[in-house]
Amino acid sequence: MKFSVLKEDPATRARIGVIETERYIAKTPVFMPVGTLGTVKTLSPCELKDMGATIILGNTYHLYLRPGVELIEAFGGLHRFASWNRLILTDSGGFQVHSLSPLRKITDEGVEFRSHLDGSRHFFTPEKVIEIQRTLSSDFVMPLDWCVSYPATDAEVEKGVELTVKWARRSRKVPLKEHQSLFAILQGGMSEKYRRLCAEELVDMGFEGYAIGGLSVGEPKGLMWEMVDFSASLLPKDRPRYLMGVGKPEDIVFAVMCGVDMFDCVLPTRCARNGLLFTSKGKLRIKNSVYKDQDLPVDENCGCYTCRNFSRAYLRHLFVNDEILALRLNTIHNVYFYLSLMEEIRNRIADGSFESWARRFIEEYSEMEA
Amino acid sequence: MKFSVLKEDPATRARIGVIETERYIAKTPVFMPVGTLGTVKTLSPCELKDMGATIILGNTYHLYLRPGVELIEAFGGLHRFASWNRLILTDSGGFQVHSLSPLRKITDEGVEFRSHLDGSRHFFTPEKVIEIQRTLSSDFVMPLDWCVSYPATDAEVEKGVELTVKWARRSRKVPLKEHQSLFAILQGGMSEKYRRLCAEELVDMGFEGYAIGGLSVGEPKGLMWEMVDFSASLLPKDRPRYLMGVGKPEDIVFAVMCGVDMFDCVLPTRCARNGLLFTSKGKLRIKNSVYKDQDLPVDENCGCYTCRNFSRAYLRHLFVNDEILALRLNTIHNVYFYLSLMEEIRNRIADGSFESWARRFIEEYSEMEA
Repeated sequence: MKFSVLKEDPATRARIGVIETERYIAKTPVFMPVGTLGTVKTLSPCELKDMGATIILGNTYHLYLRPGVELIEAFGGLHRFASWNRLILTDSGGFQVHSLSPLRKITDEGVEFRSHLDGSRHFFTPEKVIEIQRTLSSDFVMPLDWCVSYPATDAEVEKGVELTVKWARRSRKVPLKEHQSLFAILQGGMSEKYRRLCAEELVDMGFEGYAIGGLSVGEPKGLMWEMVDFSASLLPKDRPRYLMGVGKPEDIVFAVMCGVDMFDCVLPTRCARNGLLFTSKGKLRIKNSVYKDQDLPVDENCGCYTCRNFSRAYLRHLFVNDEILALRLNTIHNVYFYLSLMEEIRNRIADGSFESWARRFIEEYSEMEA
Repeated sequence: MKFSVLKEDPATRARIGVIETERYIAKTPVFMPVGTLGTVKTLSPCELKDMGATIILGNTYHLYLRPGVELIEAFGGLHRFASWNRLILTDSGGFQVHSLSPLRKITDEGVEFRSHLDGSRHFFTPEKVIEIQRTLSSDFVMPLDWCVSYPATDAEVEKGVELTVKWARRSRKVPLKEHQSLFAILQGGMSEKYRRLCAEELVDMGFEGYAIGGLSVGEPKGLMWEMVDFSASLLPKDRPRYLMGVGKPEDIVFAVMCGVDMFDCVLPTRCARNGLLFTSKGKLRIKNSVYKDQDLPVDENCGCYTCRNFSRAYLRHLFVNDEILALRLNTIHNVYFYLSLMEEIRNRIADGSFESWARRFIEEYSEMEA
């Protein structure tokens, strides 16, 4: 993987760049739709490509439990299994063990957990997590980390950083395939002290990219933004910075201002299935009866398949009648909105208008209702 | 609408033809995917076009109840509302009133029924049903008919034919839009006598096409086939013949041998959502564990998007994990299978190999498991 910064915004820490691999090229800042089980829910790979998605996410924890690593190995990796020939980032499973699994037990060696599906017992070591991702053959690999809850005591945060650093060190020793790049994950709760400590250790080891983890775990938005800002400032400029699992459109624009390059979040896909659509004029709940007879697209400024072909009235009709096409058309729209937002961000950084646009967007978007 | 028979099979009553309207052209024999609420479940109009669908079905009863006729009228009809610019056939609602509605009450005037959704009371007259379809602006319009249950007494069958004929006569007097064509529906239960009687009356009135209704209502397959054969023989050669709601691949091939030109059935779409796939080697239940690790397409002889891109193992993984993409990819495959079957039928009639192929298909297909 080669990461090049093409332009830095003079007024903020935002930058545009490009991640190049033999398989594909991704422009940054980039949004990566989440494909938990090897499918971005409701969408075909063909639709994702048409919309310009370059990287999708796969969840190590979920894929490990089903269909299992052996099956994906027999297919030569997740790309071929899921028929996706652009880029894939797989997470470490650490966050899912933290959030989904009952009865987890952490030791220095790793984490024992029970499957949220059938209660079966499993043990993840840092080495095993890398080996799983080697088998999945994803392009970007995340090491096992330890995410603390919010709020957490200093002792818990310190323990989380200690484990995360120790596990990152062990992860680096596990060989990957030639096309794979290993990121590190920055933890440290809501503490600048521990974030700094963690960053120093990880940067010292040297990774191909750096992720900011442990945020969006229940903390207030202002605190999350402070931690994004501070965390991003600790990471080397010449490596891609990835903010894990965040977030809302305004969170993304804010994080870009702090110098973040990569994003993933279930929000556009999950909200779509709940009928919440993101538009240039704000959020729109398609089941609202005001849309019952509106002969207008969801967003007149949007070029997605949904907006080019269907009215709010038709989308509402499909949604209230539980038609599967509603979930697809909503998902197409929301993913397109996020991908277009990233394109606008890149264009504005390129033409020098990013700062003023971003400040206004951040101020206005969270309150806007279409 | 102009219907032309292009070639008649010398060995059977099968024929190839073409239905031409200003909007679009459909080759016959044709299979029309069912789009009950203005959507062929899980598919986008774009996918249907890519697969070569030329006519889709809309259900008058369902669309009347939701979203309601006024809304579709405001959009200038169902084509624009659903973003489908090829052809649409709407049924009369008679069959749905028969099969879905509790507490229906039939008089000469029409049928009173309760919505299966909310129990609200409605009254369909033959005139109202045509007016609804005029508003929906479908290309092919069906008059209100009366379908009897199986088994039925002679008196019931006679009454059904009497109402169907009377209502057809009233339906013919209701003006349609210029692009719309009115079919008649042949009833008569399982009785040759009443089928003949009904056909004579209807043919005498003169309609632009003739549908065979009242079959696939629980009767044995052999009896259904006898009635298809007999019914088709009663209908004029120079008008399209449409067998309503039938059926399995072997039923369709059989009915084509009898001279039927148009088909609709929920089977390919409904079975897809239940994981039953039609292939050139027979039926395949994708959740069967034998497919767990099969690195093969559903059907090696199939050119659909699903078979070109995904393995049985991946499709099974999606299906057992309740992924929406499973329902889509299965539906794409099954609809493509039906549309390809029709293409093969047309090609075989064209090149003179239809009879032997059809007899073998009918004999073998129902027993085949992939």
